[in-house]
Amino acid sequence: MTGERPLRSWVQAANEAGCDFPIQNLPYGVFSVAGDAPRCGVAIGDMIVDLAACEARGLIEAGGAFGQPQLNDFIAQGRATWNAVRDRLTALLAEGADEDLPLVAMADARLYLPIRVTEFTDFYASKNHAFNVGVLFRGPENALPAQWTHMPIGYNGRASSVVVSGTPIRRPMGQVKGEAGPEWTACRRLDLELELGAIVGMDSQMGERVSVARAEEMIFGYVLLNDWSARDIQAWEYQPLGPFQSKALGTTISPWIVTQAALEPFRSAGAERVNPLLPYLAEDRPGFYDMVIGWTMNGQPMGRTNYNVMYYSSAQQLAHHTQSGCPMRVGDLLGSGTISGPSPDQTGALLEMTQGGKVPVTVNGQTRSFIEDGDEIGLYAHAEGAGYRIGFGPCTGQILPAMP
Amino acid sequence: MTGERPLRSWVQAANEAGCDFPIQNLPYGVFSVAGDAPRCGVAIGDMIVDLAACEARGLIEAGGAFGQPQLNDFIAQGRATWNAVRDRLTALLAEGADEDLPLVAMADARLYLPIRVTEFTDFYASKNHAFNVGVLFRGPENALPAQWTHMPIGYNGRASSVVVSGTPIRRPMGQVKGEAGPEWTACRRLDLELELGAIVGMDSQMGERVSVARAEEMIFGYVLLNDWSARDIQAWEYQPLGPFQSKALGTTISPWIVTQAALEPFRSAGAERVNPLLPYLAEDRPGFYDMVIGWTMNGQPMGRTNYNVMYYSSAQQLAHHTQSGCPMRVGDLLGSGTISGPSPDQTGALLEMTQGGKVPVTVNGQTRSFIEDGDEIGLYAHAEGAGYRIGFGPCTGQILPAMP
Repeated sequence: MTGERPLRSWVQAANEAGCDFPIQNLPYGVFSVAGDAPRCGVAIGDMIVDLAACEARGLIEAGGAFGQPQLNDFIAQGRATWNAVRDRLTALLAEGADEDLPLVAMADARLYLPIRVTEFTDFYASKNHAFNVGVLFRGPENALPAQWTHMPIGYNGRASSVVVSGTPIRRPMGQVKGEAGPEWTACRRLDLELELGAIVGMDSQMGERVSVARAEEMIFGYVLLNDWSARDIQAWEYQPLGPFQSKALGTTISPWIVTQAALEPFRSAGAERVNPLLPYLAEDRPGFYDMVIGWTMNGQPMGRTNYNVMYYSSAQQLAHHTQSGCPMRVGDLLGSGTISGPSPDQTGALLEMTQGGKVPVTVNGQTRSFIEDGDEIGLYAHAEGAGYRIGFGPCTGQILPAMP
Repeated sequence: MTGERPLRSWVQAANEAGCDFPIQNLPYGVFSVAGDAPRCGVAIGDMIVDLAACEARGLIEAGGAFGQPQLNDFIAQGRATWNAVRDRLTALLAEGADEDLPLVAMADARLYLPIRVTEFTDFYASKNHAFNVGVLFRGPENALPAQWTHMPIGYNGRASSVVVSGTPIRRPMGQVKGEAGPEWTACRRLDLELELGAIVGMDSQMGERVSVARAEEMIFGYVLLNDWSARDIQAWEYQPLGPFQSKALGTTISPWIVTQAALEPFRSAGAERVNPLLPYLAEDRPGFYDMVIGWTMNGQPMGRTNYNVMYYSSAQQLAHHTQSGCPMRVGDLLGSGTISGPSPDQTGALLEMTQGGKVPVTVNGQTRSFIEDGDEIGLYAHAEGAGYRIGFGPCTGQILPAMP
């Protein structure tokens, strides 16, 4: 789209202050209404544009992909299609456009996992978080792993346990270290992790090493991501192969994928580098976004920071992911790692905020070291533009009691 | 099938001593001939039964699944179908059967990845291997992790880099620890890992904890699995989140899936338990197989041991995998972990055999500490029955030079 982007939409709620979904955003999701078939949509104000219906009416063109119950087929069409559809939707939704679009009220819609998650990788890219957690697991001397400032370390997570916002999460059972040997118990140290998830929109080939610049091009967009973590199970299992069952109880993502295009005006440098990076990780432009991100517990605001505190960007993580020749595929989900600022009220996990449970916090008058049954965690993020905000909508999950 | 299983087939090569594919085996794979469409088949002697053609002729029934280019749709039909097809094929292939079956010569066929790998998890279940590698990475005091004798630890691997036998593997580039800081280099310590891979044949639900007995039922069959490993990249990256790029250069599996049914007569106890297991890991019958497994380098026999040296069975690993509520899906691949006996000539990795490269071995008159460019690694396994052998056929991969 050439020229100025319109600032306002004829969908009035999109123009209201504090709305997460103005015409500048246009995030993608999958929805249904009253039990009909899930299909692709775009959020605008308090409404959803039914993209399948738009395509059926010839208003947009994506080869039928919008009738699918996940966005993978659309995303796989590549950046030219992403741009064309975004431009077309912007024109159709702009104030003064006279097209009658098929809209449904978001309040009437059920939202689904927006993609079929191909594979899920979780990184560890906030230096504050890595240091804080390192102190708790290994003491201050060994807190930050030796390689941490040289590479974006990460681990492969489990794609099958990724769920959409609103899905209840069951407190897991598991094996933990007890006084007299291992114990089988309901998790006693259940935690959240406040993250951003990048969605890979293009394949790479086996043996192909992707540059950071190419990795930027491959990213379709972002979701909020809560990587629920069972800290007691994690502490017992994680050496030497990394977290496993402690991270497989569920990973909640937001239903709306905010595109890279929508976040482009908010590009920002990240945390200051401790040492130069090897050339394969060098960026030729800032890879982060100036974007507030935080979480709530039972509605009370908890940690809040900015995504630009991070040390490695999603593009650097994606580039690193391919260096051994590992092929990436459309629908791969890359968790940023917990996003934490330096102070306790900026942390993205209770483990850090309560210093491993030693300094409980007060939530609506109740004491919390970790998450209790019935607690609901919500994530949010938004970037503030001139007179508009690019937001993600809510990403929530409530904890159900364990089933012993 | 009731009564005695026939011992001989009218496919003569299936009756020869040392044949991996007698009528008692009937492993599943995917093949094509002369560039036609990949489809499902079963190996018998030196031939492949074209299951798609069988289904088209009405000789067997699997809802059209055998016309697919991978076995997932067949496997998803469940144990009753697995049993019915096995019984029917046994009858059709028995000596004296007079049906004219659609066969192709294995020598004329191209073989493919037999399944679309849904997710890949790799375990660490040989006590000898865990101890030997632990000594090299962390010293003898911390060799065996504290939880190792209490749970089958594992990590999520990368499904996108799983390839079929015969696919060349590119030596990876990567970041390693150097004298004066991290270095970017071609891997200098390239290794194999001799493993068995279990293929999950049934889904479990999120929140469902699967018992060891149920896990047994969920396993469709097994493949040979070589989890290529870049030891220098691994040493630098693996703390605290586990192996990542060091394991993503490629994982080679055999083209033939040997069914659990074929291995049933070879059930065996595994390694002696150091301590009792928690009840969720208890087995009510032996979970291993008495089966020789080994590897070759450029044709020379190298490590050779028995699968029954393992400490945790695939069923125990699968059960453990679900304890946090993690859902499993048809096509999930679970690597056993490197299979090593106690002595150097029984080890399933060069890292162990050469004591971290310090004690090189001789291969066809040449010295090897790790794998050199051009080297070909082959895996094999077979269980010896009365007058027949259940084998896997070859599982090979040759190393190509790095692309700097």
